[in-house]
Amino acid sequence: MAKIRPVSGFPEWLPAQRLAELKILDQLRSAFETYGFAPIETRSIEPLSVLLKKGDDKEIYVLKRLHEPDQDGAQDGAESRNEKNRKNSEEGLGLHFDLTVPFARYVQEFQNELAFPFKRYQIQKVWRGERKQEGRYREFYQCDIDVIGVGQLPLYYDAEFARLLLEVMLKLPIPSICLKINNRKVLQGFYQGLGIQDPSAALRILDKLAKIGEQAVLQQLTDELSLPSATAEQCLRLAKIRGRDLSTLELVRDLGIQNPILEEGLSELEYVMNFNAEFMSSEDSYIEVDFSIARGLDYYTGTVYEGYMLGHEHIGAVCSGGRYDNLCDGGKQKMPGLGVSIGITRVLGYLFGHDLLEVKSASPVKVLVILNDEDGRLAAFNVAQKLRGRGIATDVYHMPQQFGKQMKAAEKRGIPYVCFIMDGSYQIKELATGMQSEVDLEIWQPKAEYLGISILRRF
Amino acid sequence: MAKIRPVSGFPEWLPAQRLAELKILDQLRSAFETYGFAPIETRSIEPLSVLLKKGDDKEIYVLKRLHEPDQDGAQDGAESRNEKNRKNSEEGLGLHFDLTVPFARYVQEFQNELAFPFKRYQIQKVWRGERKQEGRYREFYQCDIDVIGVGQLPLYYDAEFARLLLEVMLKLPIPSICLKINNRKVLQGFYQGLGIQDPSAALRILDKLAKIGEQAVLQQLTDELSLPSATAEQCLRLAKIRGRDLSTLELVRDLGIQNPILEEGLSELEYVMNFNAEFMSSEDSYIEVDFSIARGLDYYTGTVYEGYMLGHEHIGAVCSGGRYDNLCDGGKQKMPGLGVSIGITRVLGYLFGHDLLEVKSASPVKVLVILNDEDGRLAAFNVAQKLRGRGIATDVYHMPQQFGKQMKAAEKRGIPYVCFIMDGSYQIKELATGMQSEVDLEIWQPKAEYLGISILRRF
Repeated sequence: MAKIRPVSGFPEWLPAQRLAELKILDQLRSAFETYGFAPIETRSIEPLSVLLKKGDDKEIYVLKRLHEPDQDGAQDGAESRNEKNRKNSEEGLGLHFDLTVPFARYVQEFQNELAFPFKRYQIQKVWRGERKQEGRYREFYQCDIDVIGVGQLPLYYDAEFARLLLEVMLKLPIPSICLKINNRKVLQGFYQGLGIQDPSAALRILDKLAKIGEQAVLQQLTDELSLPSATAEQCLRLAKIRGRDLSTLELVRDLGIQNPILEEGLSELEYVMNFNAEFMSSEDSYIEVDFSIARGLDYYTGTVYEGYMLGHEHIGAVCSGGRYDNLCDGGKQKMPGLGVSIGITRVLGYLFGHDLLEVKSASPVKVLVILNDEDGRLAAFNVAQKLRGRGIATDVYHMPQQFGKQMKAAEKRGIPYVCFIMDGSYQIKELATGMQSEVDLEIWQPKAEYLGISILRRF
Repeated sequence: MAKIRPVSGFPEWLPAQRLAELKILDQLRSAFETYGFAPIETRSIEPLSVLLKKGDDKEIYVLKRLHEPDQDGAQDGAESRNEKNRKNSEEGLGLHFDLTVPFARYVQEFQNELAFPFKRYQIQKVWRGERKQEGRYREFYQCDIDVIGVGQLPLYYDAEFARLLLEVMLKLPIPSICLKINNRKVLQGFYQGLGIQDPSAALRILDKLAKIGEQAVLQQLTDELSLPSATAEQCLRLAKIRGRDLSTLELVRDLGIQNPILEEGLSELEYVMNFNAEFMSSEDSYIEVDFSIARGLDYYTGTVYEGYMLGHEHIGAVCSGGRYDNLCDGGKQKMPGLGVSIGITRVLGYLFGHDLLEVKSASPVKVLVILNDEDGRLAAFNVAQKLRGRGIATDVYHMPQQFGKQMKAAEKRGIPYVCFIMDGSYQIKELATGMQSEVDLEIWQPKAEYLGISILRRF
């Protein structure tokens, strides 16, 4: 037998883990719908022209077809393969690396059939050819909520999204969250006020602060951008300001930089903070302003968010997002958008990998019908069908064996009950207690504690 | 603004259609779990070696990375691209073309952590570089149930799966189904009994009967396989036998071919038919034996299934599957499997495309809170939060406008209620009836008719 190995970066869960993941995805769906978001999915591929416009720092997977259409089933010769690669790269399709860029394209394509502001949620896999590293996957789920408006999109949404995101995550079986917020206009205005000619380049360097440290950031700012060291130090001072009240805004103003875009950014931040006063002062999951948050080269133009699991910050952001005013091209009118994304695969991969989450049952089945003998298959099937018809997940043991062996199999799978067929009557036994009694299949119900999937937290 | 066009073969639904699709996928999930199947997902990619072993007649999409890891963000030069293509094709990853081949690989990889027989369901997208044609997609959902046993897998499952598949599909908002069954052993034994040296080649030609007709099949059998015309005609006679009772088996025996594998296949078919006697004689959705069903070059070794929507047979099979005894390599012991797949994208694409299904609402929202003025945002948000907290999907109108305009927006989206905030009291208006009254937000409930998603059938 060929030994099969996992493919690096492409995680796969066991059934119990998938049950937990599904429960969490269901919680997200339900919360998103309750908050007024409609579901969509976009195709998994986009033309490279769409992907490269806004994602040129991402590792994109490009598709090519193994066979040419007119050579069905034939193996390619070495010579023709290069020619085919050339043709396929002209077609130019790649797997999407996030759900925001495809969403903006979807809205542009279907704008005559949608009602605006269009609020949607989208839960799909995305692909990135990332380097190997804990918490970095090449295939993973993103769970996104976004809104795109026509002409304008009130600042209200920037405030509401921070709150909805935190409320949704509080309900999940995951550690508490610190949601960091900033505003790109603060960074851009501050850099402009300092006379920096290429604010994007400065932003890209400052974004590495957590990874490379203060000295390396200062050096890159002075070496690569030829900034005077006083200017570089001002950038660093800004990046080090963070906190959970309005005084953080005063600390920025105290740095003495005058710029209208900076002021606009600070006043937007103030609105978002005031709206979320409750979470700004919360002791559990909370929001804080952090002027080091920049969201790399992404397409954001205003508010940006990055959320970390408290006590587990080293695995990086588990949710993020922001406002993008120019990603969706509405032609004559602007179509500003705002969105946040939850990286549930990164969270679960970490929690499963460190035994911080456990699911007791590897099966949704509540009752295993014991198979007496080969002739009893139809009777056992009919018992299962009766329970299934009433919505009780039921399975029939696959072959006649000693009852003890069949009961052990049920226990191993986390199935709480077995059902015996005895001369036309039915007995159900609860394995945890050993209690057994004759039942009426038309009315019997499992105990409430056995309904749903129970997830054990170890954090 | 750049005009955006759809990419052929990659369907995308509008929100109302996605709501319908999600409702159907939820029905499938719930039914599969009730029948005792545990959920898994496999990664979307497999090594080409796994895909090609069992899918060499499929159009596989191969992945390559746009950038090499050490040239992050840099555009490839033309010269280095061929070199990179070569390297990437050595890595050899492709998108899966079905869920059965990945499932068999998953079971082989995780066999020490699974309980057998392992029953799983799997609902995921698959990709095929198909030719353009109605009902043919390059990205589509498959909804699969499979079971893999260790050593042996009782014939009972062949019978039960036909029944479960039909029961599940009967509950969906789709036309009635004719599920055709056959057994590969019947075809293989019959061809062997006729002295045909390459039964697979014969099977491949007979599989095209519905597409190319009797004369072309006869000609290919005599030309390509050099069969005597009497032998070719016998093959055709078998392929034309179909029906809903045991007499079909006698018609096969009447053709006078003696072969032990043929007899084994007929007796397996008889077991499956007897188990499903109820559906064999049903007038609505039903099962019939059809000896023309072969399932192409696939990996099946026994029972095979193909389901068609009655009155819409021309779009091809909407569900299919069968028994595969050799797909999963268990080393010293056999790991026979059985599975069926529902092609829900093909079904929905057809039903949506021909206006046979309609969803009234493009939004899950039940209540739209009217925004009185800019200062009223927080009050409106708090009303929404109260209803959301009780599980009622609620949205706030995005900007202060005339009440009439806000109500029209609610109607356009299919939102049944609007809520007015008036001096600390709350009035809710049902748009369909115009009824308006003061409500207590802590106890008010939408009418039952507005819960869930209602799908209108036009078939």
